[in-house]
Amino acid sequence: MSLEVIKNGNPFGAHRVVEPKGVLPQPARKIDNNLNRIWDNELLIDVQFLNIDSASFTQIKTEVGADDDKIKAKILEIVSDRGKMHNPVTGSGGMLIGTVQAVGEKLKETCPLKEGDRIVSLVSLSLTPLAIEEILEVKKETDQVKVKAKAVLFENSLYAKLPEDMPETLALAVLDVCGAPAQTARLVKQGDTTVIIGAGGKSGILCAWEAKRRAGVTGRIIGVEYSDAGVASLEALGICDDVVKLDASDALTCYDTISTLTDGKLADVIINCVNIENTELASIMMCRDKGVVYFFSMATSFTKAALGAEGIGKDVDMIIGNGYTAGHAEIALNVVRESNDIREMYEKLYV
Amino acid sequence: MSLEVIKNGNPFGAHRVVEPKGVLPQPARKIDNNLNRIWDNELLIDVQFLNIDSASFTQIKTEVGADDDKIKAKILEIVSDRGKMHNPVTGSGGMLIGTVQAVGEKLKETCPLKEGDRIVSLVSLSLTPLAIEEILEVKKETDQVKVKAKAVLFENSLYAKLPEDMPETLALAVLDVCGAPAQTARLVKQGDTTVIIGAGGKSGILCAWEAKRRAGVTGRIIGVEYSDAGVASLEALGICDDVVKLDASDALTCYDTISTLTDGKLADVIINCVNIENTELASIMMCRDKGVVYFFSMATSFTKAALGAEGIGKDVDMIIGNGYTAGHAEIALNVVRESNDIREMYEKLYV
Ligand SMILES: NC(=O)c1ccc[n+]([C@@H]2O[C@H](COP(=O)([O-])OP(=O)(O)OC[C@H]3O[C@@H](n4cnc5c(N)ncnc54)[C@H](OP(=O)(O)O)[C@@H]3O)[C@@H](O)[C@H]2O)c1
Ligand SMILES: NC(=O)c1ccc[n+]([C@@H]2O[C@H](COP(=O)([O-])OP(=O)(O)OC[C@H]3O[C@@H](n4cnc5c(N)ncnc54)[C@H](OP(=O)(O)O)[C@@H]3O)[C@@H](O)[C@H]2O)c1
Repeated sequence: MSLEVIKNGNPFGAHRVVEPKGVLPQPARKIDNNLNRIWDNELLIDVQFLNIDSASFTQIKTEVGADDDKIKAKILEIVSDRGKMHNPVTGSGGMLIGTVQAVGEKLKETCPLKEGDRIVSLVSLSLTPLAIEEILEVKKETDQVKVKAKAVLFENSLYAKLPEDMPETLALAVLDVCGAPAQTARLVKQGDTTVIIGAGGKSGILCAWEAKRRAGVTGRIIGVEYSDAGVASLEALGICDDVVKLDASDALTCYDTISTLTDGKLADVIINCVNIENTELASIMMCRDKGVVYFFSMATSFTKAALGAEGIGKDVDMIIGNGYTAGHAEIALNVVRESNDIREMYEKLYV
Repeated sequence: MSLEVIKNGNPFGAHRVVEPKGVLPQPARKIDNNLNRIWDNELLIDVQFLNIDSASFTQIKTEVGADDDKIKAKILEIVSDRGKMHNPVTGSGGMLIGTVQAVGEKLKETCPLKEGDRIVSLVSLSLTPLAIEEILEVKKETDQVKVKAKAVLFENSLYAKLPEDMPETLALAVLDVCGAPAQTARLVKQGDTTVIIGAGGKSGILCAWEAKRRAGVTGRIIGVEYSDAGVASLEALGICDDVVKLDASDALTCYDTISTLTDGKLADVIINCVNIENTELASIMMCRDKGVVYFFSMATSFTKAALGAEGIGKDVDMIIGNGYTAGHAEIALNVVRESNDIREMYEKLYV
């Protein structure tokens, strides 16, 4: 079947928006997922796996129960309603693994991809046109869904070629959180004391490694973990100079602990990688005046952070975790290439 | 009546939290507003005016109607329930004007205030213990409430002495948004192209002035306004190099306009001072790669900003508007001292 191609697509994919008119694909309620035709600045992808965002997958399981068929039906319902896997409750998406099926004419000169290349999308499924023919399998432990489906990436959409030196599922797990270590690389300077909250989690470990590499021997990396198991396995990894067991929603205890540990100096940089609410104030209080707090956690509340800092008169720069930074995929993949221990841990947990 | 004084208060006011235990006064549901006794690191304030946060005041008016007595009753209900003027729907507070009635023993050496000084609180009412004896008057046009009341400021709470060279209500209006121009002063560098969204508003004007002063003659300040009236009065002020009429919720038009105006270079710094939702994407798109987007607007959504930047592959630093920066009150008051035009405009609108 020959593919119909339309000219003059918008680089951000605005041409696919059905409603409301005038917005971009991410905030749109519904986008056009007719993938029997593409625009000449789009990439058509043959999709094998969806990696549903953890918050979204959890919400779906809570709503319909643990039954695979019901989860499948819910995913199909969302995609047929919205033209994309954009969970209406959590607002989040996920990413996909697939094979390039067609490269739009206009992209041929600049885009390094060719038909048959295996890629991972690095933009959220919440803005990616998706048409599912069939859901083959739901892997509840890893939030993965095996599908027969097609999707489209826009001119400005991000993706990464799947590396050949590791299993696809390992690459996917690393790339899912690749914005965090790349931002860490930009923020942490030689000699900095850095606190990583949730340092034993998927993104936290990569951040801890990257922070240690940037801060160097004169720096100090303090990993905060919540569970005993998390503390033990983080200590075993030996990346952090100190591992402390703290509840990041208990701001006062966090402050006291880090204050004692640093002789009242507090930390230069705080990296928040937790997956729970109400950790803004602890993050702010553990940071020194004029330090930087980087919120990677999607559970961060803008107003709680802004009013929290003002409320205690703390002059810190608070940064919203941008999922994209130049070179983010390479920086993150490099961590598991450098550290065998992290690679093994990731393989045990996420592959 | 002699004032009972308790020792060993927490600098952040944790000793006043009633529930839930362990949190700080801002996130607390209820705090202790018994002001017949204070801790020895507190300031006791005789309160004359409350300046209710605009979002909170609007919500109350919508809920109970425009009737003064009903507004009074609602305010009293919130304060008696929570021990502070912390609107349960909007989560926001406001600020107060009052006279220092007592300075806790422990503060006497370090705190520059003495009994009788007139001050404005620069921390939110959403964390300030408040006991209202009587509401004397509700000024609906300026969100001000005249009261007979007492309040307490904590050791780490921010405040400013009321300046003697301007009316109190003018100072109050300026200090309400003083975090924004102070952050602008830190972010805007010589030669920068800066877009200020909502440049004609209360905070926007101060930011525009401060941006111009920092960017200098080689810089360029582009003011974005929504209404025709707003555009006209901003142009009349003559602070901005360009004034453009745009709807900041229409990301694509904002992008096209600023791209044309800057020959595709886009802006180095974006300052978002609007009071409406869904302006994250426009802010991000008007900014050049590696530029800075500063969100002062409390209507900013963390996830919309984080996913929005990732969705279009834009490598920008996004900063959460901290209401506090060192020197913020002085920087903001200085603007109305330097610019007679801004002072006149403020006096017309807010005094
Ligand atoms: N900005 C973006 O582009 C982007 C992309 C992907 C993910 N994210 C966000 O990043 C966050 C982290 O993701 P992830 O995949 O790294 O999550 P994860 O693997 O589940 O890790 C979460 C970590 O938080 C710790 N934690 C949980 N509760 C805690 C508490 N009360 N105090 C201290 N630590 C606590 C956990 O410790 P224990 O294991 O000991 O409980 C764990 O180490 C999520 O909020 C996610 O939404 C953002
Ligand atoms: N972070 C903090 O500590 C803090 C403290 C105080 C206030 N704030 C926040 O700062 C924000 C601004 O406060 P303010 O007192 O300066 O508000 P304001 O005086 O009401 O100004 C709002 C401005 O936004 C403009 N605007 C409205 N809709 C627009 C649209 N669709 N497109 C472009 N511009 C639009 C308005 O233009 P027109 O007049 O032409 O409609 C006006 O210039 C609020 O969100 C407030 O919550 C934050």
